[in-house]
Amino acid sequence: MKIRAAVLEEFAKPLVVQEVDLAPPKAGEALVRITSCGVCHTDLYTASGVDPSGYAPTVLGHEGAGVVEAVGEGVTSVAVGDHVVTLFSPECGQCAHCTSGKTNICTAIRAEQGQGHLPDGTTRLSRNGVPMKHFMGTSTFAEAAIMPEIALAKIHPEASLDAACLLACGATTGIAAALWKAEVEAGTTCVVFGAGMVGLGAVVGAKLRGAERIVVFDRSAERLELAKKYGATHTFVADENNVQRVLDLTDGMGADYTFEATGLVGVMGEAVEAARMGWGLCTILGVAGKGETLDIVPRLLITGRRVQGGSFGGAKGRTHVPQLVDMYMAGKIDLDSFISHRMPLEDVNRAFELMEKKDGIRTVLNP
Amino acid sequence: MKIRAAVLEEFAKPLVVQEVDLAPPKAGEALVRITSCGVCHTDLYTASGVDPSGYAPTVLGHEGAGVVEAVGEGVTSVAVGDHVVTLFSPECGQCAHCTSGKTNICTAIRAEQGQGHLPDGTTRLSRNGVPMKHFMGTSTFAEAAIMPEIALAKIHPEASLDAACLLACGATTGIAAALWKAEVEAGTTCVVFGAGMVGLGAVVGAKLRGAERIVVFDRSAERLELAKKYGATHTFVADENNVQRVLDLTDGMGADYTFEATGLVGVMGEAVEAARMGWGLCTILGVAGKGETLDIVPRLLITGRRVQGGSFGGAKGRTHVPQLVDMYMAGKIDLDSFISHRMPLEDVNRAFELMEKKDGIRTVLNP
Repeated sequence: MKIRAAVLEEFAKPLVVQEVDLAPPKAGEALVRITSCGVCHTDLYTASGVDPSGYAPTVLGHEGAGVVEAVGEGVTSVAVGDHVVTLFSPECGQCAHCTSGKTNICTAIRAEQGQGHLPDGTTRLSRNGVPMKHFMGTSTFAEAAIMPEIALAKIHPEASLDAACLLACGATTGIAAALWKAEVEAGTTCVVFGAGMVGLGAVVGAKLRGAERIVVFDRSAERLELAKKYGATHTFVADENNVQRVLDLTDGMGADYTFEATGLVGVMGEAVEAARMGWGLCTILGVAGKGETLDIVPRLLITGRRVQGGSFGGAKGRTHVPQLVDMYMAGKIDLDSFISHRMPLEDVNRAFELMEKKDGIRTVLNP
Repeated sequence: MKIRAAVLEEFAKPLVVQEVDLAPPKAGEALVRITSCGVCHTDLYTASGVDPSGYAPTVLGHEGAGVVEAVGEGVTSVAVGDHVVTLFSPECGQCAHCTSGKTNICTAIRAEQGQGHLPDGTTRLSRNGVPMKHFMGTSTFAEAAIMPEIALAKIHPEASLDAACLLACGATTGIAAALWKAEVEAGTTCVVFGAGMVGLGAVVGAKLRGAERIVVFDRSAERLELAKKYGATHTFVADENNVQRVLDLTDGMGADYTFEATGLVGVMGEAVEAARMGWGLCTILGVAGKGETLDIVPRLLITGRRVQGGSFGGAKGRTHVPQLVDMYMAGKIDLDSFISHRMPLEDVNRAFELMEKKDGIRTVLNP
């Protein structure tokens, strides 16, 4: 079939919205009509050409949601008409990682996905008969996508798909990090560096867990206001005194939990330092630039601080995303306030511009 | 009373064994006749003058064991005649840290101890009427020491004190790190960098926990032989291929647990890299040089590796050291093989020379 899609033709150039060919789903795959797709920093990162693992041409987009329109042979977990969230991080439930219960990094199709292929080693995307790679196993800046069924989370059919698509990446990364990766305990002090989508998600998760104090740093006063709405108890415009401010608030001890959601290695270092002696747990969520390192004074570790990270906030897509959608439906998570702009697929480059200007939290495309 | 003690008169000079004055125990303190004291790298580090928090003059030594000879007012947890291990890391059982159950870093006397004082802010050590600071709250390179009772672990009275003193620092650091800090699970792969006292302790702990593979790296073939005796299943002379060797042994995945016991930040980095995607846990135990940092590529964290550290291996002195002594008595831990040399206090500088030459694992002084 022909679909309209936003193609990354060449790095550091605007995306080109055009017709491409999408082949029908093969065994274990489903055709998803994409109704909503968030524009995430990772899309911009790849488009810029800075991502060392990036490739072009490809159809970008990975924060998608929509409706199953057809299924391939042997597909049992989703059916035509199901509402789904696309998962760049699949969950097969059977590989050594999935069965370990210790990680969300499913290895079932990792190698093929990294090469831009679907699990069988081929692509469903093409132009003029020339195969085109899939992006992050998703390529959801498009009217439709072919997804492996293990990379689809079936969600509540009445949930807003515009809201649900945010759970395909950004919102889940932050919320899950606080809920399930750091396992924030009630009554504790949490510090969040960065009040973009991921950081705000961490605020949401910390509040759901009953944190007593949620301290947020960001350069944008506007974002800090939104952080307050989501539960931040203390907000500061980020400057060179961030760590000291945390120490001042905590009798010089530091926070029980810190979350880094900026991708800046200097801020990651602050997140380690702001964690308290004895048991402070620092969770790194941002994607750092190529070749950059997080430099830690070992004494901070010897005196009890711990450092971890988590792709997708450690969330298991098919297990956790439907749970988060249910929490949204129950009014426990406000996803709608994350959506600052909505626009058609044709305006994808404008969405990138808004992101570069840090105008709003999330643009949702409606292809 | 007059006691013979090894005094650090001046940094980077040999210790001077001489008579010093030791005042009787005040409230909450005990006089301990030191029968055995291990010579640990931290003593040498402070003597060298490189330790930024070091001071002189002081009586060095912190890996002590002996017999309680007198107690001050209100002391209830130890009595005259009790066999004890001295603790540079006390356990009051009452401070916010001790009651948290989350850390072994007792804060009860931390500030005073750091300044070389006993808990009341004064010293019991002096020379010619001039007070002299205590080292690490212990100063056990001496015939006797005044210790706060919260810094004494009462142990099985029939245990060899030469063996037990090793649990005052080095052996416990490694064993506890594997047993209680990393909580090694049975059937897993553990990698230990450095086969000195701490690293060998980690091997012991990993084996006690039923690790399937214990891989050890050290520059000394002799130490690697000892590692095998303690349970290492694979040993390698350390070189630039350490991480690759771990990957080769683990289908490219890395180890479930890694332990760093060298104090070299480059090796700490290897320990992070050698931990496996998804859940690999790296435990840093060595003390790094001043100003040095552990530099981590954030991607290693995002893909699931975790990093922690632990002073004293995370052991709670009065809780865990008696347990380890009991395990020694039951034949589950071979402490005696760690002792490569025994000598009188007068030979302390020779013990330092042996350590600098990496001759043997541990010298025990018998004051």
